Amino acid sequence: MSIPDTPTSPEDSEARHKAKMQRHKAAVDARIARADQDTGLLLVLTGPGKGKSSSAFGMAARTLGHGGRVGVVQFIKGAIPTGEERFFRRFPDEVEFHVTGEGFTWETQNRARDVERVEAGWAIARGLLQRPDIDLVVLDELNIVLAHGYLPVATVLADLAARPAGQHVVVTGRGAPPELVEAAHTVSEIKVVKHAFKQGIRAQPGIEF
Amino acid sequence: MSIPDTPTSPEDSEARHKAKMQRHKAAVDARIARADQDTGLLLVLTGPGKGKSSSAFGMAARTLGHGGRVGVVQFIKGAIPTGEERFFRRFPDEVEFHVTGEGFTWETQNRARDVERVEAGWAIARGLLQRPDIDLVVLDELNIVLAHGYLPVATVLADLAARPAGQHVVVTGRGAPPELVEAAHTVSEIKVVKHAFKQGIRAQPGIEF
Repeated sequence: MSIPDTPTSPEDSEARHKAKMQRHKAAVDARIARADQDTGLLLVLTGPGKGKSSSAFGMAARTLGHGGRVGVVQFIKGAIPTGEERFFRRFPDEVEFHVTGEGFTWETQNRARDVERVEAGWAIARGLLQRPDIDLVVLDELNIVLAHGYLPVATVLADLAARPAGQHVVVTGRGAPPELVEAAHTVSEIKVVKHAFKQGIRAQPGIEF
Repeated sequence: MSIPDTPTSPEDSEARHKAKMQRHKAAVDARIARADQDTGLLLVLTGPGKGKSSSAFGMAARTLGHGGRVGVVQFIKGAIPTGEERFFRRFPDEVEFHVTGEGFTWETQNRARDVERVEAGWAIARGLLQRPDIDLVVLDELNIVLAHGYLPVATVLADLAARPAGQHVVVTGRGAPPELVEAAHTVSEIKVVKHAFKQGIRAQPGIEF
């Protein structure tokens, strides 16, 4: 014969919840107290999963919400008009939006032209990375460009290191090079658990572009 | 004595690049041709890494760029004003923004009140999930609510299943329940490769909130 569990009243359960949450809060508060520095962050969003560029554009929206200014360079996209481009172009005083790509490399099929476009794109990015009035620079799909060797990682790292102290930078795209991961403060790798495309669903406006 | 590699001219290399990219394009095009359905997607962004909520807000921006309408319910946030709230409240005709939380559960320390707030939040979410004029519904940090058992997963799944056919939904937060992952079209798990917070850098406006 088993002994039944001691029944607990809702008050007991609430008290236990409160005690557990108090312990958790103490631990979180201690971690927050230890994190007392402000600095311009270098963030990298990489991996094959959905959400890298959209996350960068969410940070752009947040930055605008705090009264900041944003610069965007899209290195690969450019073949089709995107929702993010249309939307952020509404705010020309707050967002500088540059689309420097012509589509994915398997669409252009011309390495020399891809390299030329990338170099022109990087010149624009470098300009943004020199401006203290720009709070966030989004370098969309730059990782792909670096992974293809279209631009030296050392050039990118040097320009990132020379930027104004408080400026945040988000770099997106699969295949972030190890040197960039090393230099970054925050790096997220987005894994595919599942993807609609594999279920025969095409890229949806608003979601994928 | 080793035989030197046959030197390749830039033309050879460009031709090889083109051939490789043509093969890649054929494979991509075939996959795109197989993905011929449009549908309202259920997307889940989970995992411990940075970029879940910001990705949802990037999709909100994209949706607005395509002329769509967005509904947002934030289930946990609400203790401090966020950049996303300030920003998206600029567009009251295009975005319905609801903040229903009072902070993280370890801040409130009151399970009964948390549950009450969550239930009120879900009533708002259900209203958005019944509106064909809303193209994207963002349910920010809902996974945390579900993981804590503050709301039955079955209730959420039933309301999601009953929504208009073309409506997209993005659910964010750590600890997505398996039933929600099962029901979703696209699920990304965001891994922490590194995080600024662990390097003593506090949450930065525009980036984390």
